[in-house]
Amino acid sequence: MRSGQDQDQDQERLARAALTRVLEPGDEVGGQWLRIYGAVGLMRRLTEDDDLLPGATPKRAQGLRLRAARARPQRDLEAARAAGARFICPGDMEWPAQLADLGDAQPIGLWLRGPADLRIWALRSVAVVGSRACTEYGAHTAVTLGAGLAERGWVVVSGGAYGVDGAVHRGVLGAGGATVAVLASGVDMPYPRGHAGLLDRIAEQGILVGELPPGDHPTAYRFIQRNRVIAALTRGTVVVEAAYRSGALVTARAAQRLGRHTMGVPGPVTSPLSAGVHQLLRGEGVLVGDAAEVVELVGDMGDLAPERRGPVVPRDLLEPPAARVLAALPARGAVSLADVARGAATPLDDTVGRLYELQSLGFVERHGDGWQLTRQAIMSVFPSREGGGKEGDKGADHRR
Amino acid sequence: MRSGQDQDQDQERLARAALTRVLEPGDEVGGQWLRIYGAVGLMRRLTEDDDLLPGATPKRAQGLRLRAARARPQRDLEAARAAGARFICPGDMEWPAQLADLGDAQPIGLWLRGPADLRIWALRSVAVVGSRACTEYGAHTAVTLGAGLAERGWVVVSGGAYGVDGAVHRGVLGAGGATVAVLASGVDMPYPRGHAGLLDRIAEQGILVGELPPGDHPTAYRFIQRNRVIAALTRGTVVVEAAYRSGALVTARAAQRLGRHTMGVPGPVTSPLSAGVHQLLRGEGVLVGDAAEVVELVGDMGDLAPERRGPVVPRDLLEPPAARVLAALPARGAVSLADVARGAATPLDDTVGRLYELQSLGFVERHGDGWQLTRQAIMSVFPSREGGGKEGDKGADHRR
Repeated sequence: MRSGQDQDQDQERLARAALTRVLEPGDEVGGQWLRIYGAVGLMRRLTEDDDLLPGATPKRAQGLRLRAARARPQRDLEAARAAGARFICPGDMEWPAQLADLGDAQPIGLWLRGPADLRIWALRSVAVVGSRACTEYGAHTAVTLGAGLAERGWVVVSGGAYGVDGAVHRGVLGAGGATVAVLASGVDMPYPRGHAGLLDRIAEQGILVGELPPGDHPTAYRFIQRNRVIAALTRGTVVVEAAYRSGALVTARAAQRLGRHTMGVPGPVTSPLSAGVHQLLRGEGVLVGDAAEVVELVGDMGDLAPERRGPVVPRDLLEPPAARVLAALPARGAVSLADVARGAATPLDDTVGRLYELQSLGFVERHGDGWQLTRQAIMSVFPSREGGGKEGDKGADHRR
Repeated sequence: MRSGQDQDQDQERLARAALTRVLEPGDEVGGQWLRIYGAVGLMRRLTEDDDLLPGATPKRAQGLRLRAARARPQRDLEAARAAGARFICPGDMEWPAQLADLGDAQPIGLWLRGPADLRIWALRSVAVVGSRACTEYGAHTAVTLGAGLAERGWVVVSGGAYGVDGAVHRGVLGAGGATVAVLASGVDMPYPRGHAGLLDRIAEQGILVGELPPGDHPTAYRFIQRNRVIAALTRGTVVVEAAYRSGALVTARAAQRLGRHTMGVPGPVTSPLSAGVHQLLRGEGVLVGDAAEVVELVGDMGDLAPERRGPVVPRDLLEPPAARVLAALPARGAVSLADVARGAATPLDDTVGRLYELQSLGFVERHGDGWQLTRQAIMSVFPSREGGGKEGDKGADHRR
């Protein structure tokens, strides 16, 4: 039996799923309506009433009503499920709270494909973006940066596009790291087509994210709006190569407006593909040459850095798959991803996701290719080593 | 007949010439003695007294006394004259006042070779320095930057070394521009030997500058100290390529300490020869990609920018060679360097020097390859065009 509250939540989720097909990403007027009327109320206005969309021209209102009449959210949610995707909304456990920084341009909801938890991954993430038509230098730099960030335990977010985006995703995957691709289309519609294999691989080992419902196509406008999600999800944006007017600079400026770190990798001043980056570096952008310099900047995470304060989630509250992965780590020393996966009897891709989740929760840390327990975690995972007491059994023994 | 004051000045100059052979460049303790005792007094202490060099160990005092005993300033001044060089001291008309920013490390005097006026040239100058072992990219950038600065009427100062220094000097000379090489040796001792031709060319068309007397050799210490002179002479320093620990970074840091602009040309992050520049750009340095961006920064010259306020030196006070060059410029439109030289019946190299001098005084300006009168200068040069009055004949006619 489902309670009335659960049913309300289901209705709200269904309405939001419908609205992702009605409102374009980043529509701030639509975001205001959503804030004022709620999702269910807004869908009702769009499908029933005739005169209550403040600020909308008759033509725009008509267009939205047409889309609303055609929306089939139940079918979209089923199509998503069939494609291995899910739909998350503000308020859900997996919703990344920092997206609220976008104000009324916050996504209505996000369609996700991939085994990991987006909220937890995004806590310790950085965006790397750049030109589609990058040079060999840009591709080389992107691959190296992606691998370096992965080796330092950072989640790397990009746009899945040709050029720099693809190179950085591949660099992360090659290093057995965690990567997120934010698409300007439905997450069941890999775009660009030439990256179908890469995006499927990200859906297996990382997360595909999109504001658009299943089957929806990218447009120039949606590409631009997609960039604000990349900027808002992450702690900072690195631009690898970008000509003047490149879309990557839109992401960088969005990051700046959101108070995130904005970084750029310089290149030859003779290269038009570095001109946009250099423009950024002559303004607020910080020059970075490698992953260490990126981490130096974004790593100062303040109160969002759970791994610095020890575990914040009691071990007993971990989901069983995460607890299994945690149990596969030895008390001392580092082990490889493959060893953890074997010990936890968990597929390799799932293991990656769980390890990054555990890292964000402060239980484990990555050093190069090895994973190990944090010092703070050892007491909570192996309480017997600290005098035989159980967790919570605080009076047992204070010997050292 | 020479007055007593003239004779005092001659003695002071002779003593300073001697001191350039006794004290190493940038010796701040020596600079304090000089400030307290004067040059003549200090030489007397070094050659006669035995106990009055505060702060000097007996060994150091002995070394200085040995050098002082061997100094033959009269012979050095004659050797300089024979090599086409001259010696200038603080207080001389040609002494660049901004060197006083070096405090007690101000040069004791400067040995110069070349037709131009150092003080006037330095007013509108920028330093471009970099690695001796530069890449093709660095050399290309240096040549382009040198030519671009020359075309914008800026004097370019560098160190005459292999690599970036040489490339920037050549870029300026190739564009018919004004360039100054500050050496760590006597200005009659071109160093490095492989640049003898280039340095001779600079002595003909630009200025060679050195703190060391004729015949003196460079040392590692003198190379380092030379950099502070480059930094202090100019309105800003651009580093083109520099590895970590490069001497070019010493110049950049000296410029920073002196409140000058510090700039860097980025390169590939994969190039060790750009690593030092990138380090600079991650600190106080400003990224510049071309001459226009350099001029944008250093061109904001405040009260040192005579060309923005119109002529500050009455035309009648110009030296005859400068007045001849000025007279060779037409009232309207630009003419080439060769045309000016022909019209003024002045050798090409001298003409370059005079044109830059006139530019600093606000009479002319350079645009690309052409030279023309400034708007403000036209009235002073062609007073008859403004109603037939003479200069100073202000009441004659106010018609427009």
